Amino acid sequence: MTSADFKAPPSGAADHPDRVFRIGLLGHGTVGGAFASLLPQHAGRIERLTGLRPELFAVMTRRSGSFDEILEGSDLIVELIGGIEPARSYLLRAMGAGRHVVTANKQLLSQYGEELWDVARAEGVQLRFEGAVAGVIPVIRVLQESLAGATIDRVHGIVNGTTNFILTEMGRTGMTFAEALAEAQRLGYAEADPSEDVDGRDAAAKMAILARLAFDTPVHLDQVRYEGIEHVQPDDLAYADELGLQLKLIGTAERIGSGLSVRVHPAFLYPRHPLASVSGPFNAVTVESEAITEITMSGPGAGGPQTASAVLGDVISAMIPPASTPPTSQVLEIVQDVVSAFYLHLDVADEPGVLARVAQVLAQQEVSVKSVVQRGLGDQARLVMVLHPVLESRFSAAMDEIGRLDVLRSPPRAIRVLEEEFG
Amino acid sequence: MTSADFKAPPSGAADHPDRVFRIGLLGHGTVGGAFASLLPQHAGRIERLTGLRPELFAVMTRRSGSFDEILEGSDLIVELIGGIEPARSYLLRAMGAGRHVVTANKQLLSQYGEELWDVARAEGVQLRFEGAVAGVIPVIRVLQESLAGATIDRVHGIVNGTTNFILTEMGRTGMTFAEALAEAQRLGYAEADPSEDVDGRDAAAKMAILARLAFDTPVHLDQVRYEGIEHVQPDDLAYADELGLQLKLIGTAERIGSGLSVRVHPAFLYPRHPLASVSGPFNAVTVESEAITEITMSGPGAGGPQTASAVLGDVISAMIPPASTPPTSQVLEIVQDVVSAFYLHLDVADEPGVLARVAQVLAQQEVSVKSVVQRGLGDQARLVMVLHPVLESRFSAAMDEIGRLDVLRSPPRAIRVLEEEFG
Repeated sequence: MTSADFKAPPSGAADHPDRVFRIGLLGHGTVGGAFASLLPQHAGRIERLTGLRPELFAVMTRRSGSFDEILEGSDLIVELIGGIEPARSYLLRAMGAGRHVVTANKQLLSQYGEELWDVARAEGVQLRFEGAVAGVIPVIRVLQESLAGATIDRVHGIVNGTTNFILTEMGRTGMTFAEALAEAQRLGYAEADPSEDVDGRDAAAKMAILARLAFDTPVHLDQVRYEGIEHVQPDDLAYADELGLQLKLIGTAERIGSGLSVRVHPAFLYPRHPLASVSGPFNAVTVESEAITEITMSGPGAGGPQTASAVLGDVISAMIPPASTPPTSQVLEIVQDVVSAFYLHLDVADEPGVLARVAQVLAQQEVSVKSVVQRGLGDQARLVMVLHPVLESRFSAAMDEIGRLDVLRSPPRAIRVLEEEFG
Repeated sequence: MTSADFKAPPSGAADHPDRVFRIGLLGHGTVGGAFASLLPQHAGRIERLTGLRPELFAVMTRRSGSFDEILEGSDLIVELIGGIEPARSYLLRAMGAGRHVVTANKQLLSQYGEELWDVARAEGVQLRFEGAVAGVIPVIRVLQESLAGATIDRVHGIVNGTTNFILTEMGRTGMTFAEALAEAQRLGYAEADPSEDVDGRDAAAKMAILARLAFDTPVHLDQVRYEGIEHVQPDDLAYADELGLQLKLIGTAERIGSGLSVRVHPAFLYPRHPLASVSGPFNAVTVESEAITEITMSGPGAGGPQTASAVLGDVISAMIPPASTPPTSQVLEIVQDVVSAFYLHLDVADEPGVLARVAQVLAQQEVSVKSVVQRGLGDQARLVMVLHPVLESRFSAAMDEIGRLDVLRSPPRAIRVLEEEFG
């Protein structure tokens, strides 16, 4: 075997004597623009991770740029034009020229995925598309790699943030569909033409891709039955509320005997279903398999910055060797004393002035009380307090002092309270 | 450059003329045994995915087997012995011999991780350890790859299933810690010696690993402050219940200025916190970053089969080229007609016999009614039904007939109900 038998890998420091990794970007819309501004922000960190400095070699828009020139000068092509053509031809030509490619094009993959995946395998290049489904939730990678050893029975997904936001708003406020859609458009959660989102076609394309990966079966967008949320009435959400159900636009891909069903439709969920609590513009995907019970992943749906972040993750993955843990670089000092809120439980003597004495100790350490509940009488008297966030060393000093008070009948007990509110 | 400059990759069909990929397994305890029985079940599928048939070359236990022989004959080493030595030496020697390695050894990685990762990079081999943290939840891969392009601010985790089960049981039943621990042992959720689980050290080791990956900072187990749940009283859970809070053993790794805090302690969570609803033996991890808001991943914690499944995912990842979408193999027929439960909403005339006529149509199509609510009077009369699961084609036929009934004042409206109960 001679070195000519080896195809030079498209990435790796060895092939980049100037230590620059050139990225050709096709498309400069919402996601493309977000990617172009995200890349330089992270270039330093990526250079530490990979040994290569990523640079935007050129950006092609509908109006300007030559694909041939971009292909010639780039180590990797990021396709964010959307639609079928010319995106499909560009990806095929880039892979044919030995370039790794990254795309977020769900419509293309749900219709021409097999052709693209065949070419990627034949050329030995990476075709990554984490951004195509559920924004920054790494469901593609998980299906392709983590769960490659599991027999998957079912995938459920809330994979369209626009419709989830609209349904959440309808449920929360009693708005009609039209009103909630207008609100979503005002907040940037729905596009000017929202039809592919609200009629379920966008979710159908994503479910076709997930089903393909989960079940190794070719699934074309045309094989996915879908129903949208345009016909949902405030009445339906009132009914859901009454029964404690949640109404969601659910995508399903499930094994049925020797068959596979892939579909998208509104559905009521019982409150303990892992997708029931996913609200607003969030996305989530549940993967069920006998061996693993179920995994749920949730996070923000596909906004420009989120999708761009998923695309950047794909670019970095294409730059680094698999399963590599980079050397430490961003060495932070390990902090031991942090700020926490506390719940404090005291068994106290049932006599006047106990609260005053405890409060005085707390005040001396500048620990501030958020709420107090005094409970019980006689031997059962208890003081339960929630304290505002405080440096733990100060709290600890206060606890030592309180522990020495003669009105205490057992050592004080403290548990932290996570203050952050979510949702 | 000559071919001598290339180090033969440790895997890939080209290097396996007999198309067999040999796995040396160190350790045959709970996880090792589960892995040994999982592998042959999936060998056919893995061969379709990778072109190579995985085989267990040999198993080494404390009593039998020669490491030298296993190393010599294996393409990849799976270390499931646990503990520091001889696991550490075996992994170092395997990587030194150019073998990819897979381990689930959290104690080893949280104390000797930097040494192991350095050797993996120097030797150009893969060191995979998804099974070391949170069972089958792919948090390692997500931190190493998907989020490599994000600046992470905080990681929160419920990474010990034993303690989460105990706290859930205490909250649900009012049991003491000792009673709930005994219950966990009875059900196999706690080991005979549960000390490393209940005192927080197991979770601390896992958080050290997550912190290292999220913040590119070396974190040794000794730098993680941890507190367990042994001192939690039924009182504390009663208090949580009263205020709608959930008590969890929470691991935290967060950036504080130019520092990093890594700690494990019980904490009360507000109901909307993404970890608040994680109950029983489940694990979950939340990753926060400005760019992506937050991602939450949840699933079953580390039981033998779950961890073995994560280990198998790592083995498969080491066998396939990165980001490859395998050719379709398990081609399932696409099913269009499935079984669903429905909610049915009818605007009806307020007159006797309406329910009877609707029920008759449903009965003819063998659609069975689970519950009925009749609401309103006069022009506002509505019939809301929930139907038992039925083949959608039958339901659709019933809907057509109901739509033609003269007692209906607007077209019938139906929404599916997901019947599965979780949790």
